[in-house]
Amino acid sequence: MTTAGTKSFRIHVDLGVSAEHKRLLRERTEGHELVFPQTPISSVLVKAERDPQFANVDIAFGQADTESIAEAPRLKWIHVSSSGITRYDNPDFRALMARRGIPVTNSASVYNEACATHTLSFILAQARCLPHALGSNAANGSEEWQKLRGACVPLRGQSVLILGYGAIGKRLAEMLAPFDMDVIAYRREARGDEGVPVVTNDRLAEVLGRTDHVVDILPESASTRHFFDAGRFSQIKQGAAFYNIGRGATVNQEALVDALRSRRLGAAWLDVTEPEPLPDDHPLRHEPNCFITPHIAGGHVDETGTLVRHFLANFDRFVRGEPLADRVM
Amino acid sequence: MTTAGTKSFRIHVDLGVSAEHKRLLRERTEGHELVFPQTPISSVLVKAERDPQFANVDIAFGQADTESIAEAPRLKWIHVSSSGITRYDNPDFRALMARRGIPVTNSASVYNEACATHTLSFILAQARCLPHALGSNAANGSEEWQKLRGACVPLRGQSVLILGYGAIGKRLAEMLAPFDMDVIAYRREARGDEGVPVVTNDRLAEVLGRTDHVVDILPESASTRHFFDAGRFSQIKQGAAFYNIGRGATVNQEALVDALRSRRLGAAWLDVTEPEPLPDDHPLRHEPNCFITPHIAGGHVDETGTLVRHFLANFDRFVRGEPLADRVM
Repeated sequence: MTTAGTKSFRIHVDLGVSAEHKRLLRERTEGHELVFPQTPISSVLVKAERDPQFANVDIAFGQADTESIAEAPRLKWIHVSSSGITRYDNPDFRALMARRGIPVTNSASVYNEACATHTLSFILAQARCLPHALGSNAANGSEEWQKLRGACVPLRGQSVLILGYGAIGKRLAEMLAPFDMDVIAYRREARGDEGVPVVTNDRLAEVLGRTDHVVDILPESASTRHFFDAGRFSQIKQGAAFYNIGRGATVNQEALVDALRSRRLGAAWLDVTEPEPLPDDHPLRHEPNCFITPHIAGGHVDETGTLVRHFLANFDRFVRGEPLADRVM
Repeated sequence: MTTAGTKSFRIHVDLGVSAEHKRLLRERTEGHELVFPQTPISSVLVKAERDPQFANVDIAFGQADTESIAEAPRLKWIHVSSSGITRYDNPDFRALMARRGIPVTNSASVYNEACATHTLSFILAQARCLPHALGSNAANGSEEWQKLRGACVPLRGQSVLILGYGAIGKRLAEMLAPFDMDVIAYRREARGDEGVPVVTNDRLAEVLGRTDHVVDILPESASTRHFFDAGRFSQIKQGAAFYNIGRGATVNQEALVDALRSRRLGAAWLDVTEPEPLPDDHPLRHEPNCFITPHIAGGHVDETGTLVRHFLANFDRFVRGEPLADRVM
């Protein structure tokens, strides 16, 4: 990878990787130095412990804490091993990165496919009443059977609003294309390259009032905290289904419970909650039309391998001085 | 609908319809006579009771029994209110219809969309481990959580074999298009208009051996009874998922239990079984990777309305002497 005269980089990897992935990292970063902390992180959602070795690294791959970053004078690039960047997404940190000229990239491309597929699995399970149907042995022709069949809803002609229209939302829109649905995106500002109609704040209430499937993929930030509160839920079309595969903090869960109990919402499908996991006695766990998976939407077989390969492809770009993929700052 | 000089038809409707649907039928068949039996059928899967009025009808809409049909000399057209035509699909009946020049149509178009969506909901629920994930409250970073995330499989690059490639299979292939999967159809004979590669019997074993998702939408007939037996299951790729949304009789269920227990199959998703519903103590009900819905794949809100409107559109064609939709004989 390196040629004579190319600078050698010290790369900090706090992602927990197998011996095989370490071998791959070493092979593909030959001529550079890999630094592993004593305690790798157990999950992309957990903040890493501070590692004294971090002070001298050039590149950070994983979930480096912001204090360590502030105290690492040689740092030239941060590649976050998750799609969410909540830990870093604040004005101070953005200003610091801009001032020091440090690009920050994330692993969005690693998770798009899985997250979009997970969301569609929720939408289809809702349309086909899978949670109830899988538990039913209703006899053909029985009243229960007629009711179950009649509760299934064709997606054709229904509407989907995707809030937070990044890479996952775009991929979801592609997957929804064969269903002839009315797909709309919500963003703070339309960029014009969305490929679907975009609404911003001024028309959100109106669109929520006629949307059958409300998909929350909002990132977590000060402006999205409890974005879905009692007021917002009251704007949603009666009987709509609500999906959250973004961040739990974007939803006021008490308001969500109320929206389910009042039947404003027909169902809620959540991959993220606050906290995670929800305690067994949390009211959402006992709402009959609330379905929860434990923050696995982005998961997939050999996920660490995908993360490592994604980092390495970006590392090649970094070494060659090319624009980095999935740049977020 | 009728004009002066147009013949008036007597139409037998043994489908259970609401007052509203009856009104719609009357409106749209004005000038013709509707005949309803005393006891309408409770399900499209249930054989109707014999109705003495049937002997004088011109058109049958529903699930008329073959004896009644044989004894109805004026019969000119049979429109079956289901997608499956097991009751009629035998050489003797086909010969009788051909001899008497009676076209037989079914309601395939009514069920394509729902059946294909139901199948895709199974495939996605399997890919995203929904049955296990919805029951889990694994903590982020825990071993159970890592295992669950790692058990989710991206569909991209995986293969699907659709056995019985009629209207449902075609629609399913359309819905699968965004996933970049390898979609193959199995038919007795390729017609050339499938839009996907077709295999016939000579290559079936080879293709089963490399297919990740085996989708059985075979109709029930003498040649498909227990099509999936021990021999066929032994040809399937280790760990593949098997889906049946066609007819329960196409599967030897003892062989299916064995295929699940030996882990030849990674999972089975069944909307149809033999009998329906399966008794509570049936071994398939206790296989951890067998997921059963109670024959609802074709169900959807206002299904009877869709059936009635589909019949009426075909009735308009019949009156105008145009080719009928969904003709099966």
